Amino acid sequence: MKHTLTVGLVQQAAWPDKARSLAESERGVRDLAAQGAQLVMLQELHATHYFCQYEDPALFDLAEPLDGPTGQRLAALAAELDIVLVGSLFERRAAGLYHNTAVVYDRQQGRIGHYRKMHVPDDPGFYEKFYFTPGDADAAQGFQPIDTSLGRLGLLVCWDQWYPEAARLMALAGAELLLYPTAIGWHPPDDDAEKRRQKDAWTLIQRSHGVANGLPVLVANRVGHEPDHSEVSPGIDFWGGSFVCGPQGELLAHAGKESELLLVELDMARGEETRRMWPYLRDRRIDAYGDLTRRYRD
Amino acid sequence: MKHTLTVGLVQQAAWPDKARSLAESERGVRDLAAQGAQLVMLQELHATHYFCQYEDPALFDLAEPLDGPTGQRLAALAAELDIVLVGSLFERRAAGLYHNTAVVYDRQQGRIGHYRKMHVPDDPGFYEKFYFTPGDADAAQGFQPIDTSLGRLGLLVCWDQWYPEAARLMALAGAELLLYPTAIGWHPPDDDAEKRRQKDAWTLIQRSHGVANGLPVLVANRVGHEPDHSEVSPGIDFWGGSFVCGPQGELLAHAGKESELLLVELDMARGEETRRMWPYLRDRRIDAYGDLTRRYRD
Repeated sequence: MKHTLTVGLVQQAAWPDKARSLAESERGVRDLAAQGAQLVMLQELHATHYFCQYEDPALFDLAEPLDGPTGQRLAALAAELDIVLVGSLFERRAAGLYHNTAVVYDRQQGRIGHYRKMHVPDDPGFYEKFYFTPGDADAAQGFQPIDTSLGRLGLLVCWDQWYPEAARLMALAGAELLLYPTAIGWHPPDDDAEKRRQKDAWTLIQRSHGVANGLPVLVANRVGHEPDHSEVSPGIDFWGGSFVCGPQGELLAHAGKESELLLVELDMARGEETRRMWPYLRDRRIDAYGDLTRRYRD
Repeated sequence: MKHTLTVGLVQQAAWPDKARSLAESERGVRDLAAQGAQLVMLQELHATHYFCQYEDPALFDLAEPLDGPTGQRLAALAAELDIVLVGSLFERRAAGLYHNTAVVYDRQQGRIGHYRKMHVPDDPGFYEKFYFTPGDADAAQGFQPIDTSLGRLGLLVCWDQWYPEAARLMALAGAELLLYPTAIGWHPPDDDAEKRRQKDAWTLIQRSHGVANGLPVLVANRVGHEPDHSEVSPGIDFWGGSFVCGPQGELLAHAGKESELLLVELDMARGEETRRMWPYLRDRRIDAYGDLTRRYRD
């Protein structure tokens, strides 16, 4: 029995002000829904510039509660278009407690789930540990997929994409898709070879999660140059390259480095077909994986 | 301080008889050593045809103890050429107890370590669960790298390549390289698109272990058509495609589908450079990985 799912990704530039960024996102979502997308995903922190290029306490003003104005707008959009919409919020959970949170809105049901980024990066130009408290889920609760009217979503965020552990835990919990809203780009002075290696590494590690788990993967990244307003660094060139791959890691759609909408009809039966042929889950050596919960085996 | 390591891979066809297969392997090893290889890796079960295409108890006659004639010959070759040599044996540990074992010979020191394949596949044409007892290492002992005069080798075998857990455990134990002797190929009747997806998936999952762990990866696969002597299936077309990639998953050398020797000078400082830039090990959520030791989270 063939079951298809039409998914859409919005790859866009962003602006410092939410009104303009959200208008651009909304235009993309409407366009994709009009083309038949049942599930649409936006990129990480799509409502603003990627503000983590420097550390400034004033920027916490950008954060909103889960059901603040941005959340309400996304929920209304999903309801109006009768789609499942995956958005991304800079979440104010309490004063001094903020998260990088992906949120799922399901048709008329509004917000039905959210995921607070568990792996939080920090490197020059990406000072996320200042802004975002890591998701506080523990072993029993952590990396739980979100059930929607279209299936069970293994929703993760950006830096999580480098961790096979996160994808595996989602798959073991029955996720039917892996999703990565992302904001990643180049340090402009790096040479072309280094830039290519970085982008290739990013593409292939996420495709590999599809392979390892027999699941389709959706990745939405932003585009465009965004300045470092502290003027310490030359800013970031976000590399786009959003993509959808199938359960063998095969690319089904792949964006360039400009704004672009991706629309893909996924054959959801292929995942089980793939897992029957190469049944990795059968052979995991769970008796010998205990040290995966150690920081280092020293 | 730059530290380089010159590695060589032998990608070859095999024959049913060991004498001819080993002569071919030896020719490749000598050639690579003459070109400056310090470490040479052979493909999985290089001494014979890939005999797991059907189940026949008589084929256990092919197995040898670790230090049987094949092991002694490989040890002597490593000593003569003053190299570290990674070979692969069908190991007879006891009557009725056989393993698929990768073995490391270090210059004059002879056999200094071995790894018994932990993940053992079984699918049509690859009936390995009949022939090979899975490695019996537990959580404390499992997936331990092998120390050599050239560095610490994260040696795994074939089907292990699909498991990010295995590569991670090797990295956490201080492995400086990941190595995968392999025997994988196409079912001849599959169409070209399926063949391409399979080979691409195989290449990218192994490159992804380099990315996730900031380590170079060496993969040696066999080539050529080998018949199914039971005449049930049309045999296997081994796809070659052996490669060496660096710690960002970048391909440094990549073989075609014929016999071929690969020689690569690895800059071993790049791994630490990469890990400093993208420090994944720093941010692993070991508090939330406990369920990785479950079969399924149901």
